[in-house]
Amino acid sequence: MERQKALDIVKLQLTEHRYQHTLGVMETAISLAEKYGADVKKAEIAAIFHDYAKFRPKDEMKEIIMSQGLPQDLLLYNTELWHAPVGAYLVEKEAGVSDNDVLDAIRYHTSGRPNMTLLEKVIYLADYIEPGRHFPGVEEVREIANENLEKALIKAIQNTILFLMKKNQTIYPETFYTYNDLIQKLED
Amino acid sequence: MERQKALDIVKLQLTEHRYQHTLGVMETAISLAEKYGADVKKAEIAAIFHDYAKFRPKDEMKEIIMSQGLPQDLLLYNTELWHAPVGAYLVEKEAGVSDNDVLDAIRYHTSGRPNMTLLEKVIYLADYIEPGRHFPGVEEVREIANENLEKALIKAIQNTILFLMKKNQTIYPETFYTYNDLIQKLED
Repeated sequence: MERQKALDIVKLQLTEHRYQHTLGVMETAISLAEKYGADVKKAEIAAIFHDYAKFRPKDEMKEIIMSQGLPQDLLLYNTELWHAPVGAYLVEKEAGVSDNDVLDAIRYHTSGRPNMTLLEKVIYLADYIEPGRHFPGVEEVREIANENLEKALIKAIQNTILFLMKKNQTIYPETFYTYNDLIQKLED
Repeated sequence: MERQKALDIVKLQLTEHRYQHTLGVMETAISLAEKYGADVKKAEIAAIFHDYAKFRPKDEMKEIIMSQGLPQDLLLYNTELWHAPVGAYLVEKEAGVSDNDVLDAIRYHTSGRPNMTLLEKVIYLADYIEPGRHFPGVEEVREIANENLEKALIKAIQNTILFLMKKNQTIYPETFYTYNDLIQKLED
């Protein structure tokens, strides 16, 4: 899909603020893909569509999780997680994206998963460090991302777990499975 | 079992430093049990024996984990976790403690588990806050322990996760499950 066509599709789904964030993720994902050898075109499309479902009503997302065989434990955890797997489903169904690598990068951009592909890592990290992001620790992750993709990802996930713990919120199991998986591979 | 007999048995297994820690855990566990309504005698015995296996050779602990049906994923995570379930096994076999409540409090005193019993919570927390403990955050947990057992436990587990993340170490899944379980029950 051409970049402009994809952007036109996704713009209708997002607020202006979230669309600007999406443009930032797109630029960052392309840079990371070039730097670390991921498929640049797939990174572009996955980045453009990563938040496609962000503003869908919770009831609609819940119905899709229940009816489309998505992991049912999502319903027990923070609703902020839902837009990623639901987005993968809707982007295929409504926007006609059929590339499974792209769909998985959308699907796992919030939770991560063990054995993440290079493309999935690029999208996860681009979402975290794009230039519009301003929160404690983001600059450190940007710096690490210039050196080592996996170490930057570990730092981002650690920050996320820390952020959730400070708010006394639960942590989706897939997120700490991802953390343990990345740490174990770092040790190898 | 009489307190002095239990102490005599366990003293042979420990360094002097670890024995003094055990006395601190015993006193703290008794106080917490009295405060929160746990069985004081069981708390005393579980506390005395909680580190029984602490100085067993790693090879022996590994062999017990493999041969006695203990969770095999322990072998994939930090060896510091092993002395708790191995301790429960050895305390029954060698010291003749047969009370399952006591054995479970020993078994889960390092990892925790979802649906912890009151006695298990008392031992986990006593081990963390006994007077001989000196590390960042312990005083805050002591203060919370005067008010709310579960909130103190959450803080202790958060500190433990934070400590492991700072060292880029893996986190045993049972520890995360325990955290999520306590948070979910706090919300109810």
